[in-house]
Parts: sequence; C-alpha cells; structure tokens
Amino acid sequence: MRFPRAQNDRYLRVIDVLLFREKDPFAPINYSYQIEEILCKRKSKYNEIMVLKSPHFGKMLILDNVVQLTELDEYFYHEMLVHVPLHIHPSSRHIVIIGGGDGGALREVLKHEEVERVVLVEIDREVIEVSKSFLPTLSSGFGDPRVEVRMMDGADFIKTTGEEFDVIFVDSTDPVGYAKSLFTNQFFTDAFSVLKPDGIFVAQTESLHFHRDFVCNVQHKLAQKFKLVDLYTISIATYAGNWWTFSIASKEYNPRKKPRKCKIPTKYYAEDVHINAFLPQSLKEKLLG
Amino acid sequence: MRFPRAQNDRYLRVIDVLLFREKDPFAPINYSYQIEEILCKRKSKYNEIMVLKSPHFGKMLILDNVVQLTELDEYFYHEMLVHVPLHIHPSSRHIVIIGGGDGGALREVLKHEEVERVVLVEIDREVIEVSKSFLPTLSSGFGDPRVEVRMMDGADFIKTTGEEFDVIFVDSTDPVGYAKSLFTNQFFTDAFSVLKPDGIFVAQTESLHFHRDFVCNVQHKLAQKFKLVDLYTISIATYAGNWWTFSIASKEYNPRKKPRKCKIPTKYYAEDVHINAFLPQSLKEKLLG
Repeated sequence: MRFPRAQNDRYLRVIDVLLFREKDPFAPINYSYQIEEILCKRKSKYNEIMVLKSPHFGKMLILDNVVQLTELDEYFYHEMLVHVPLHIHPSSRHIVIIGGGDGGALREVLKHEEVERVVLVEIDREVIEVSKSFLPTLSSGFGDPRVEVRMMDGADFIKTTGEEFDVIFVDSTDPVGYAKSLFTNQFFTDAFSVLKPDGIFVAQTESLHFHRDFVCNVQHKLAQKFKLVDLYTISIATYAGNWWTFSIASKEYNPRKKPRKCKIPTKYYAEDVHINAFLPQSLKEKLLG
Repeated sequence: MRFPRAQNDRYLRVIDVLLFREKDPFAPINYSYQIEEILCKRKSKYNEIMVLKSPHFGKMLILDNVVQLTELDEYFYHEMLVHVPLHIHPSSRHIVIIGGGDGGALREVLKHEEVERVVLVEIDREVIEVSKSFLPTLSSGFGDPRVEVRMMDGADFIKTTGEEFDVIFVDSTDPVGYAKSLFTNQFFTDAFSVLKPDGIFVAQTESLHFHRDFVCNVQHKLAQKFKLVDLYTISIATYAGNWWTFSIASKEYNPRKKPRKCKIPTKYYAEDVHINAFLPQSLKEKLLG
C-alpha cells in the first residue's frame, strides 16, 4: 500500500505544479509533486521548459508549470492518442502531428509499418531539443527517415501546406496561449481540407470532469465539418481532472466500429481497450445534449 | 475554459489535503484545494473530521486529511458503487453497507424499491452526525424506516451477525488504520458466510494507477472464496490516482452479464455505463497475470 520511496534523501524541495493556474489562483485542484532533481530548466520563446526527476514518476516534462508527461505513465496517453485512429483507418500512410515535440506520439506512429511519411509540426524547437537530451525513450523516432520536422505554428502549417494526409494528430498543450489556434473553427476547416477523402482527425481535448464546456464546444465545432464525430477517454493520473478526452472526427470510417487487429507491441492499447474507451452513448447524449 | 470563480474574495486560506500522506511525506501527488470556509472541524475517536467549502466542488468531507467526497462529484462514486451490483442481482432485499457514514451509498441503495432492509455499519458515529448536519443531500436516507444503523467495527459486525444478506457494500476509507480489517482473508471469508447463496460482495479498492498491487491482492483473496470475481473502474477527479476501482465478487450471477434495466433516476449510471465500466479483459489479464 505504501508508495515507492526514493532510495535516498536527496529531496531538494517541493515544486508546486499548478495546472491551469498560471494566471488563475482559483483552479479547482492544485497538484504538486516531490522531486529529487531539476534536470533542466530553461526559457524558450514559447515556454518555460523543465525536466524534473520524481522518485515515483521518473522524469517529468513540464511546460509553463503544467505537467506534459511522466516517464511512468506517458504510454497511456500516447498509445491512446495514436493507436485508436490508426486502427480505425485501414492504411494510414501520410501523417501529420501538430505539437508532440516530446516525440511520444511520433514513437507510437512509427510502430505502424504502413506509415510512409510523418510531418511533425512543433512551434517550439527547444522542446524537441530538451526531449532529445533528457527523454530518449520518447524522442527515439526523430532519427527515422520517414520523419520530417517543421518548426512552425501548427495552424499556419495546416493552412498553407499543399500536402494531403490520412490522419492529423493534435498533440497540443492546453488550449490557452499559442495553442488556442488549434481549437478554432478556422483550424478545423483547414484540417478538413488537407485530409484525404477518408481522413481522420484526432485531438486531445482536456478533461470531462473539469473542462466539459470546452469538450462540448470542440465536439460541436467538429460536427459542423465532419460526418462522424466522437469522443474517447482515458484516466490519466497526472493531468488535472484526469478523465481525459480525445475528440475524433472522421470523413468515412465510423470510429465506433470494430478496429483492425493490433499487430504492434503496446503496453495498454488493445482491441478491447479501444472499444471500451469510447464514451457510452448515454453519457455522450447527456454531455452533448 | 476558465474555472468557475467564487462570487467573492472570501478565500481564507489554502488547505493542503495530502492524500495518503499523513505519515508519509513522499506520496506521488499531493492534491490541494482552495477553500472558502471551514464549516466544521472536530476530532472523533477515529478520525479528524472536516467539512470544507470549496468554490468549485461545493462542500467537501475530509477524514484524516483525505478527501472522502465532494458535493459536486460524489454521485459518480456512489452511483457506481451501488447500482452496478444492484443491477446484477435480480432482487436485492437485504443489504449491508460497511462504512458509508456520509449516507451517499445509503441514499442510492434506497432508490431500489425491492430493498426491504439496510444495515449500515459505521465505526464512527460522528461521521454520521456531521453528515446529517452539513451534508443533507447525502444523509437524506438515515430517516428511512428500512434502515438500521449500527455503530461498530464492520469486520466485527460481519463476524458476529446471524443475519444473511443479498449484497454487502464496503464503502470504507483507505485501507490503512481501522479500515485495514476490511481487506483481510478473514473478513472476506466472513463476508462470504453471511451472503445468501446468490449474494454479491463489492468494495471500493483504490486506484489502478497508484495502488495496483493492492487491487491485485484483493482480487486474488476474493477469488479464493468466490466463484466470480471482477473489477470495474471509474475516473474520479478528487481521489489520488483517480482511476478508481471497485472489486466485485459474486456467488452466482456473472458480473459481466447484461444488467437488468435501470428504472431509477441517476445522473451517471446507465446500462451502457455499467457494461463499459468493467475492466477490458486484456487489461485484467495484464494486471492479474
């Protein structure tokens, strides 16, 4: 029952990681973590980037005081973000990842042999650099010849690219500041345009416990463009509200249909997990009215 | 996107609610909450009891520095604890609730017309008193003529009662201190004995993210006595680890079978939510090996 203890008493101090509280002192829950060591702390043009070492969670990537991932449990998020749409689409060859500078989503995408090309569009070059230096288990995919990294705003990329894609992933920070542009009608319209006729769009869309209005808003906006819009969820211990949502929008394939057989190595994702993750219809109706 | 703010600036102070950290300063996550007001703070023989008012969560019941419930979201936990087994059992007439002094589980049990008698066994009389005074939406069931309240240790009650029950609920605090006795082989053996030949046992069994070994241990212990043992889960924002588990053990009815039709008013529970809550088999196998 007791939590794992660190093997020593090198606890330097407690860092309060205030989720969504950068400018608002009244967020519902304040998470804080004991850490052993500050491995990296720097300020880029877009973020204050930290890598902390926790005795329980391993290395943690923090952007602007919000936990982005921990080594212990990042696979829940990254596997579910990536493998759900890639098992709905029969053969995803061209992929774009908006955000995801840590490389976790990229690592999962590259497990799929049918993937021929991945464009990763990250606004903050330093997030990628930090991940390459401190998070090798996440950033392992950046050397893959199928990958092209673009350092620019994701919304601008989608608006201006001439390329077409099978699947678009939005692996963004919380929808404040520079990430706001990834949740607008304009962005969803542009995303629709660059998707192939059977393309799929998926985005992380915050917590059903804490950000229900936001989730609804995204679902309604997506439904104005896409034929099939749905929601799947997962419990994540280190994201505030933790009943985490992924909004999925599809031009042709029904996300609730039986997925294709999973042939890649995973720790959490499986066919029954995939099916189970979709929000029960009764809740979807209550939520979206 | 912003969190609801309180209508005034009566924030007195921040109280750190340290989950599982009463004696261990190295728990993985420390939750803290802004509060507007301390409505009640007293020490009983068993617990330090507080009722706090939060601008986001409403009233919060805290025992020994651990959040037991909040007015905003208690229904997720109480509906799932109660309505899953009561929709698996075809007609539960005699019920025992171990713990649950706040009255939330009792309120949900009493929604079922077929229930003739409920014994609620709470070790701490003052928890019930506090709930009656400060949490009327939870404690509304204590006046129901079908209810008998016993102020004693739950394990002792189960060992010594001559009565038989259709369903046993364990709605306990975390399995430390006085609640430890509710997770032993002896207790599970005694619970098996007082259940009717088609009886069902269900207990809250902590988080899959933070207490996986504990969950496994309970599942294995239950499987030594009961033919059918299973696990269902829910995301709860205010419980540390929040991928919360209920362990269910049944003498006759398979918990994974289609439940009976839900005819009572609920906010979260529904037939599809019930089915969806059971841990996917692939995860159950990974978890329990």
